[in-house]
Amino acid sequence: MLRFLTAGESHGRGLVVVVEGLPAGLPIEEEAIAGELARRRLGYGRGPRMRFEVDRLTLLGGIRHGRTLGSPVAVLIDNTEWPKWEQEMSPHPGAPSRRLTTPRPGHADLAGMLKYGFDDARDVLERASARETAARVVAGCLAKSLLSHLGVAVLSHVVALGEARADGGLRPGPGDLARVDASPVRCFDPVAEEAMVAAIRAAAKDGDSLGGVAEVLAYGVPVGLGSHVHWDRRLDGLLAQAIMSIPAIKAVEIGQGEEVAGLRGSVAHDAIEWDAEGGQYRRPTSRAGGIEGGMSTGALLVVRAAMKPLATLNRPVLATVDVETKEPTKSFKERTDVTAVPAMGVVAETMVAWVLAAEAVRKYGGDSLAELVRNWRAATEALGST
Amino acid sequence: MLRFLTAGESHGRGLVVVVEGLPAGLPIEEEAIAGELARRRLGYGRGPRMRFEVDRLTLLGGIRHGRTLGSPVAVLIDNTEWPKWEQEMSPHPGAPSRRLTTPRPGHADLAGMLKYGFDDARDVLERASARETAARVVAGCLAKSLLSHLGVAVLSHVVALGEARADGGLRPGPGDLARVDASPVRCFDPVAEEAMVAAIRAAAKDGDSLGGVAEVLAYGVPVGLGSHVHWDRRLDGLLAQAIMSIPAIKAVEIGQGEEVAGLRGSVAHDAIEWDAEGGQYRRPTSRAGGIEGGMSTGALLVVRAAMKPLATLNRPVLATVDVETKEPTKSFKERTDVTAVPAMGVVAETMVAWVLAAEAVRKYGGDSLAELVRNWRAATEALGST
Amino acid sequence: MLRFLTAGESHGRGLVVVVEGLPAGLPIEEEAIAGELARRRLGYGRGPRMRFEVDRLTLLGGIRHGRTLGSPVAVLIDNTEWPKWEQEMSPHPGAPSRRLTTPRPGHADLAGMLKYGFDDARDVLERASARETAARVVAGCLAKSLLSHLGVAVLSHVVALGEARADGGLRPGPGDLARVDASPVRCFDPVAEEAMVAAIRAAAKDGDSLGGVAEVLAYGVPVGLGSHVHWDRRLDGLLAQAIMSIPAIKAVEIGQGEEVAGLRGSVAHDAIEWDAEGGQYRRPTSRAGGIEGGMSTGALLVVRAAMKPLATLNRPVLATVDVETKEPTKSFKERTDVTAVPAMGVVAETMVAWVLAAEAVRKYGGDSLAELVRNWRAATEALGST
Amino acid sequence: MLRFLTAGESHGRGLVVVVEGLPAGLPIEEEAIAGELARRRLGYGRGPRMRFEVDRLTLLGGIRHGRTLGSPVAVLIDNTEWPKWEQEMSPHPGAPSRRLTTPRPGHADLAGMLKYGFDDARDVLERASARETAARVVAGCLAKSLLSHLGVAVLSHVVALGEARADGGLRPGPGDLARVDASPVRCFDPVAEEAMVAAIRAAAKDGDSLGGVAEVLAYGVPVGLGSHVHWDRRLDGLLAQAIMSIPAIKAVEIGQGEEVAGLRGSVAHDAIEWDAEGGQYRRPTSRAGGIEGGMSTGALLVVRAAMKPLATLNRPVLATVDVETKEPTKSFKERTDVTAVPAMGVVAETMVAWVLAAEAVRKYGGDSLAELVRNWRAATEALGST
Repeated sequence: MLRFLTAGESHGRGLVVVVEGLPAGLPIEEEAIAGELARRRLGYGRGPRMRFEVDRLTLLGGIRHGRTLGSPVAVLIDNTEWPKWEQEMSPHPGAPSRRLTTPRPGHADLAGMLKYGFDDARDVLERASARETAARVVAGCLAKSLLSHLGVAVLSHVVALGEARADGGLRPGPGDLARVDASPVRCFDPVAEEAMVAAIRAAAKDGDSLGGVAEVLAYGVPVGLGSHVHWDRRLDGLLAQAIMSIPAIKAVEIGQGEEVAGLRGSVAHDAIEWDAEGGQYRRPTSRAGGIEGGMSTGALLVVRAAMKPLATLNRPVLATVDVETKEPTKSFKERTDVTAVPAMGVVAETMVAWVLAAEAVRKYGGDSLAELVRNWRAATEALGST
Repeated sequence: MLRFLTAGESHGRGLVVVVEGLPAGLPIEEEAIAGELARRRLGYGRGPRMRFEVDRLTLLGGIRHGRTLGSPVAVLIDNTEWPKWEQEMSPHPGAPSRRLTTPRPGHADLAGMLKYGFDDARDVLERASARETAARVVAGCLAKSLLSHLGVAVLSHVVALGEARADGGLRPGPGDLARVDASPVRCFDPVAEEAMVAAIRAAAKDGDSLGGVAEVLAYGVPVGLGSHVHWDRRLDGLLAQAIMSIPAIKAVEIGQGEEVAGLRGSVAHDAIEWDAEGGQYRRPTSRAGGIEGGMSTGALLVVRAAMKPLATLNRPVLATVDVETKEPTKSFKERTDVTAVPAMGVVAETMVAWVLAAEAVRKYGGDSLAELVRNWRAATEALGST
Repeated sequence: MLRFLTAGESHGRGLVVVVEGLPAGLPIEEEAIAGELARRRLGYGRGPRMRFEVDRLTLLGGIRHGRTLGSPVAVLIDNTEWPKWEQEMSPHPGAPSRRLTTPRPGHADLAGMLKYGFDDARDVLERASARETAARVVAGCLAKSLLSHLGVAVLSHVVALGEARADGGLRPGPGDLARVDASPVRCFDPVAEEAMVAAIRAAAKDGDSLGGVAEVLAYGVPVGLGSHVHWDRRLDGLLAQAIMSIPAIKAVEIGQGEEVAGLRGSVAHDAIEWDAEGGQYRRPTSRAGGIEGGMSTGALLVVRAAMKPLATLNRPVLATVDVETKEPTKSFKERTDVTAVPAMGVVAETMVAWVLAAEAVRKYGGDSLAELVRNWRAATEALGST
Repeated sequence: MLRFLTAGESHGRGLVVVVEGLPAGLPIEEEAIAGELARRRLGYGRGPRMRFEVDRLTLLGGIRHGRTLGSPVAVLIDNTEWPKWEQEMSPHPGAPSRRLTTPRPGHADLAGMLKYGFDDARDVLERASARETAARVVAGCLAKSLLSHLGVAVLSHVVALGEARADGGLRPGPGDLARVDASPVRCFDPVAEEAMVAAIRAAAKDGDSLGGVAEVLAYGVPVGLGSHVHWDRRLDGLLAQAIMSIPAIKAVEIGQGEEVAGLRGSVAHDAIEWDAEGGQYRRPTSRAGGIEGGMSTGALLVVRAAMKPLATLNRPVLATVDVETKEPTKSFKERTDVTAVPAMGVVAETMVAWVLAAEAVRKYGGDSLAELVRNWRAATEALGST
């Protein structure tokens, strides 16, 4: 059973993640983690924070001489701006210089203040910040490393940004990730890319923000992850939770997703064929997104995440109230990104990789990478004879 | 912590559900459970099975003299057709009269056979059947009972069926459930209802099936269920898993869902107002679907589930292979429903109610209903002073 | 991940257990389960209930033609006395004929009434009854079946009853279970057996009860179940919880247990030797009880459970109060057993088998018995080369 | 639901703990944590490591201005010796200067090497080290802080060390902790203390080690923590797991523990009395250790942990083999403590406090300390009327 906990506030001393349940002997290099964190900062239309936010990593435990020990892996991401924030965010007794009392619509602020009994929105927003996803990306990087030994590759691309939409037929392959990342909006369709960049420019000019949709693809997923036997073991359910848990996500789709609800059954499913040469079953289409009955089918896994536009705008238009005076006011202004959809795709990869790795560990068992791979290989070979 | 397990196969002796973690003193009547199970059989376009499927209930444990004991509640739903199936599905050593060797596209059949090493698709499909959701509905009925004591009402209506779509502005209130259930397609919009019935008739004529979308609404949800502090505690993530775990669901949306991804930030969020009279915050719109930062805001909770068309058709068009001979063939024909969307809405209510009840138990604690309600009431009163 | 839930009250309609996570293809026969339930009724000095308590079983789900389907396994144990109790324990609205208002010392009665807000001790004692362990024994029987395919045998014997103690050096082997079960007190040491029977007779004459100690032995446990990497993954901790959760258990020991606390380090550990012929490491002693660092070592697993004497006596001596009047009184008299230690040993086997099976499933993975065994075999072979 | 993960190796860069589920508003000061960590280093007969091991703390997240935020709390304990170990324990690719190939009897070494596929015992022992309990003590300190607001005080004392045993009738009260900590062996009985110190001196002279028993007492535990309704919810089971998970513990007892197994029922239970003045039930004795039916009774909670003597001796007597050559040899010599029982008592407090805090959070709910305390107070007041 894989599990992880993260801690840390956006402007606190740092973020830390502890990942428990990884097999021993998994090769891990700091550079790979740093690379994934850098990918999370990608994207046209991001504000200044992303530029100075260099993630200084410390591997605290669970890794020795470049491979895991089977013990929990802990990684610390320092907040390089901590000196500036030390007083405001100090763990030691004291008081903030100024309380934030105008909760922002579209954020956790108000619900968090009411739930936890706070009179300062900062006590909520520091943790509700998207910064926390950096810690998840570390966990996701470990998960991707594990999956790579099982022949699984997870990647993402942006398929919609504001009103601009990519051609649904264009999907990057496992080798196309660098090309996607090189796109300013992480879009694989060059025509749509241009429209997306234009949409960001237009929104930036208006001090407004944009949402969008990222699609995660997992190649090489073995058949039989997840299960039909109980609701909380279904792979689609696990993926839906993982994706919806990313801040600002409001919809999750598998395969054709919502579109399939409008089709008739005769054209909505993936035929089954036998590939005599490869000795395995094959699907000519991937309408189901690689999942049937809550289990991976071995076909391309397709998951999409729809993100709402950021609620922090560069122009104060969202109406709110001051919780102290109850007087109406506008949501506070802050320099911010126009959109975070390109980066969200990287986080969505992370969450998909996490779920797949957890299910792989569950299905194949094994305390070392060698044992996990041996069991996976034996299972794969046995499939041919079913 | 609420938890439940279900067991039982579609044509087995029966289904059983065990629900652990309910407070003591919760009034439960068999009639209420039977009523919910009957609602799950609603819907125009359902085949003969739904008509003869009368759910015979036995309360096995956890309830005495009409209220819960705090111990696990177990309910058995007998399969009234068991005598016909006893030989084929016997738990005792033996063999099936005939193995099903042509896995159906769009079902768990093939992935399940490969995962579990079966040579008979029945070993998979008996559990992967939607019949299992009857057991969930029992758990959901207990959850709804609990929620009713906290002023929460959960209901659903069908908003799309095939290509027919209801007017998005029409939403049933807590008192409108009977009217929704009286609709042959559980649609609250009379115009759309007609189009939906027509679509079913047309599909039936063609031996085809239809998908659609159900919307679940929860009125009276207290502020602060779920949490922003950790990814697996977010209410939206929990709801997404619960909904996506329903067979045939391919998309989950919260509030405006996917649509919001195409809007700008300035028009995509819910303003915050202070209702001086009621002594609470108010939102004039419900774009966020009642969830911000992974927490309930106190506004109307809105969740939508998109269902693919049933993969079992009344006409054999889906291409598959015989796993024994590897020869191509057509998916086997069976008398089946044209659509299950109206019933799916009831199951979706169940899953939403389950998640909300579990989170309410987590937030308010309490070993008896009286203690739970006392804590909820005190929390609600304290909100006024935040 | 193996998990189970049980439900049902002592005099309710029946007990039910749902076990989730078993691999598919595990052979299960009703007779084996019935046999284990009969073993749970063994023991000299048991009252009349044990004699008429014939456990009528129904396999409700998860098993077809004598082997598991990978889906949850549910088994119902009918209460054959239900007709006598139907009114008193009815799930339907009503009232008890008489409330029990004098909570018994040494039972859950008072704490349960205060926790759950009951005014009738029966609302607690019906579930707190040792009868519930029958449902656990079913789960344990499934676990033992699974373990048998990995070469693991779990058995128990009584090593102390009242003041009578067995010779610590005498331990039954995997083939001695029938002989142990044939002993009226499930003791493997014939001399101690006699003293135990005498102690029961003496206590019976005085209307008193006796506690004692059962030892569980697991032969063939593979090396490396459990883990040192996190506190909640340690095998000794999991076993301690499982054993201490049996009603009336007040102490759990692994290997030499408490005695080792008084020894010096130079004589308290098990030397490591290399068995060149067998190609494996060997321990000439088993002081550690087969667990070091929270992991199984491959040596004989030894766990002991100490049970307090039953608190229901055949003579009313325990002082209590009537919760209604607060007047002092004596704990109510009931025909009861003198001791339940022999049967407790069977329940302790069950809990040990459960923990071992759960850890085996975790370590070896596998969705079918064939896959589990294949992975186990490969791991065992790989050990030789470490 | 409270949960925590720890990470870090004994000679790695540091230890980190992340605690999730604490209510917001709980006052936490670094000094309190440092104080608890210092207590863990107490005890006569400890080697030099304990003296130079000053625990340098960093509060990484979840705490702002001296109180919790409801978000996960993370604390880092630096390894002040890291510069000396940096090469040997580097997370970056490389190799150890020397592999440890003679696994020590009584340690995780051999089982861990076989389980995880290591050829260097250091890959196991670095995590299996008792050093990891420092991270637990931080979690325990947070738990104790929470419990203090519910009137619960948890403390421990040593009741046996080697063959020296304290007078069972002498138990420190909540105010006696400083006096216990002032004892060189954390023993409350001055006569036994002297014998314990003498035993340590004698063992030290022989290069040998000693085990012993610590007793944890919890005063003020509210009635009704834990539950009788399901095996994994019983408080005694949870405590047993938590205690047995401490390295080197081989037995756990509740109340009279093993001794009660030899008594008759008529003298083995705690009578129930009504205290009219205090308006509550009372027990004149505490044989059950404050737990009946898996629930706290409100009486003094008593848990004992028996620790085996340390397996690392100052004299090489334990026989082992070199895993490379398979040649017999002696377990490697290292400067070490004679006994760790006094410190183990502090760790045992930690684990008991953790379990009690987790159950309190479960029973009383609440997202802030104020809400938790309000619910606890209301529940306590309601008890008077039961």
